[in-house]
Amino acid sequence: MSFESMWAALQPVGRDAHTGGYRRFAWTREDHDLREWFAGECSVRGLDLTEDRMGNQWAWWGDPDAARGQKGVVTGSHLDSVPDGGAFDGPLGVVSALAALDLLQAKSRAEGWHPLRPIGIVNFVDEEGARFGVACAGSRVIAGAMTADRARSLRDAEGVSMAEALSRAGRDPELIGPDHETLERIGSFVELHVEQGRALVDLGHPVAVGTDIWPHGRWRLDFPGEANHAGTTRLDDRRDAMLGYARAVLTARSAAQAHGALATMGKVVVQPGGVNAIPSAVTGWLDARGADEQAVRAAVEQVAAEAARAGATVTEESWTPTTPFDADLASRLQRTLAAAQQTQPDGIPLLGTGAGHDAGILANAGIPAAMLFVRNPTGISHSPEEWAEADDCQAGVRALAAVLEDLSGESS
Amino acid sequence: MSFESMWAALQPVGRDAHTGGYRRFAWTREDHDLREWFAGECSVRGLDLTEDRMGNQWAWWGDPDAARGQKGVVTGSHLDSVPDGGAFDGPLGVVSALAALDLLQAKSRAEGWHPLRPIGIVNFVDEEGARFGVACAGSRVIAGAMTADRARSLRDAEGVSMAEALSRAGRDPELIGPDHETLERIGSFVELHVEQGRALVDLGHPVAVGTDIWPHGRWRLDFPGEANHAGTTRLDDRRDAMLGYARAVLTARSAAQAHGALATMGKVVVQPGGVNAIPSAVTGWLDARGADEQAVRAAVEQVAAEAARAGATVTEESWTPTTPFDADLASRLQRTLAAAQQTQPDGIPLLGTGAGHDAGILANAGIPAAMLFVRNPTGISHSPEEWAEADDCQAGVRALAAVLEDLSGESS
Repeated sequence: MSFESMWAALQPVGRDAHTGGYRRFAWTREDHDLREWFAGECSVRGLDLTEDRMGNQWAWWGDPDAARGQKGVVTGSHLDSVPDGGAFDGPLGVVSALAALDLLQAKSRAEGWHPLRPIGIVNFVDEEGARFGVACAGSRVIAGAMTADRARSLRDAEGVSMAEALSRAGRDPELIGPDHETLERIGSFVELHVEQGRALVDLGHPVAVGTDIWPHGRWRLDFPGEANHAGTTRLDDRRDAMLGYARAVLTARSAAQAHGALATMGKVVVQPGGVNAIPSAVTGWLDARGADEQAVRAAVEQVAAEAARAGATVTEESWTPTTPFDADLASRLQRTLAAAQQTQPDGIPLLGTGAGHDAGILANAGIPAAMLFVRNPTGISHSPEEWAEADDCQAGVRALAAVLEDLSGESS
Repeated sequence: MSFESMWAALQPVGRDAHTGGYRRFAWTREDHDLREWFAGECSVRGLDLTEDRMGNQWAWWGDPDAARGQKGVVTGSHLDSVPDGGAFDGPLGVVSALAALDLLQAKSRAEGWHPLRPIGIVNFVDEEGARFGVACAGSRVIAGAMTADRARSLRDAEGVSMAEALSRAGRDPELIGPDHETLERIGSFVELHVEQGRALVDLGHPVAVGTDIWPHGRWRLDFPGEANHAGTTRLDDRRDAMLGYARAVLTARSAAQAHGALATMGKVVVQPGGVNAIPSAVTGWLDARGADEQAVRAAVEQVAAEAARAGATVTEESWTPTTPFDADLASRLQRTLAAAQQTQPDGIPLLGTGAGHDAGILANAGIPAAMLFVRNPTGISHSPEEWAEADDCQAGVRALAAVLEDLSGESS
């Protein structure tokens, strides 16, 4: 299967005909179809497919449990999406991994080249956290960065717990938890991902090496109110939960501006939610990030103080400090890409990113990890506008193949 | 069936076990059960049940189409609710109507009293507009205050049109429309309703006569934005639809305060709605009312101007000017209540209301209409806190029976 035909196979899954955006949430029918597709692609390549305790899919070329003690070189990403997301965030890393493996397997057949280390491709489950609110749930649980109890008790918008969702998908929620056996197989991890900003457009390069993930977190703000009739309750008698929420939204923007961070309030739930009912409860979520940890913390504290004035409770749902990728690995990627492109290592751009990734969870678990970013001409992400040109995708595949070849060693 | 046993029968239908609130939306299973209950209560009383073109249920004691040309005296209300609504808003009027009829039928059996005019009890469908966004849809359509085409094309939160909802409930959406034959039967209409404020608590009276419905309307505010990733998009590059919405919420409150009106924003829909996605579209709804029409209009214009600065489009979904009830009818109700209570007419309180009612739609259609309000000790409405004491409910039933007896004339 070529890159193009794999891409075409994924194109219709979970796509909204009207917006062109994707809705591929964890443990739904769409997710099931994507996992089946991944298993099929691994099968035709003769890979050994396993699942870890959380259901992340791992496909191996070579035996990662062989006695010689060579840990694997792993690449891959995820296939789930945010609501109305783009086609590239996640799938580009999985499809590029399979296409890069095709190049190495062709080289193996044509030139007798064989990797010294096993090569693995992973499809992480529930990376976006779109359904249960915690990003990178699949890697967090196996790395012990989120407890199994907390994961099981998370609930989606319909009130379905992750434990129930796992059961409905035919999985045993009691099995999830840290999976050292799986992590032990990973000697290094390289995730290829579509870029989520405009840096490579400005730099005129198709591929960059990732250096770190900015600190980022999510906070839930619960504003209290009292349900009452919109037409019969005097303004002075009201406890309208929407007012505190609105002030928090505006404070989030001004605080981010003041501290040089990013803050977004993209999700809100209102009770009871009728046009003629004064809101008795509004829950808003704050997403905050930035290059500097202190700046992010300061902005969040300003929002929390404003919310507290409206009687809100503020709950930190997640917080991830700056995640530096493995510096040696990043330098090695830079050199490998430079050699493949016949240029100097410092001609390969380095990028930090404000988005969380499974590569960051693995890096925090002590696994040497790094990323490759492929240019996105729109600079837009988490939207149907997200894009990568075909030539840039091919450049990404070649870069990833060169990296896997280098890291897996050589014996001919 | 006594008032108490009717009340007990309705108690579990559509009730949320956790909040104690009700969710009884038009043409749902709950609505169907309530209609069946109403039909049963009418049947045991020997009433003739008919439905008009919109599916509103009318039960008659006596023949409203008899040749002698005596138009009917009609009372009743509705059985649907807002999301997480109270038990009284709507059902109190229907149950009190049945209980008042019981008093008159007992008087008929015991004293040989017979009404000169037929007496009708109505259960209006979809009064709250909780599902499709337009209040009093049942009475609006038969009165010609909303066209059948517009009604059919309204959509609920799941995207189901009213036409589809009617079909799924086994009804023909092509049949709905103005129903002059039904309206022609109504000589006068008196709706009993739980009070939605604290006026009767302050006045120390169990029952008041309604004088008018304040002008009120609903506006939809569509804020545009651009979907993008919350972690990778610079603040300056963003078009975040939530910011304009938040400013409109705060403006609605301050404008209402400045103009002496009421304004509420109780419903909001965000696209795409993910924690880590910049909102590409936010739709908010503004509910505005007040004793003075100019004041309401001025407050709404201030909100619309603020929304326009954020590029929003503002759509008036409904607007109802001040609706005075029939002054002669209201005076007659006041005199009847005073006589029954052996007091002076000016001892019976008169109240205006900020809430819309089917009685207002009928009044605008030229039918002499009025209302009775029963004291609500919490003053809270559209919430599980909504309440009426048993003694006050009985006072309401006696008042309504006296009014029906007076209006239907007497022949013994």
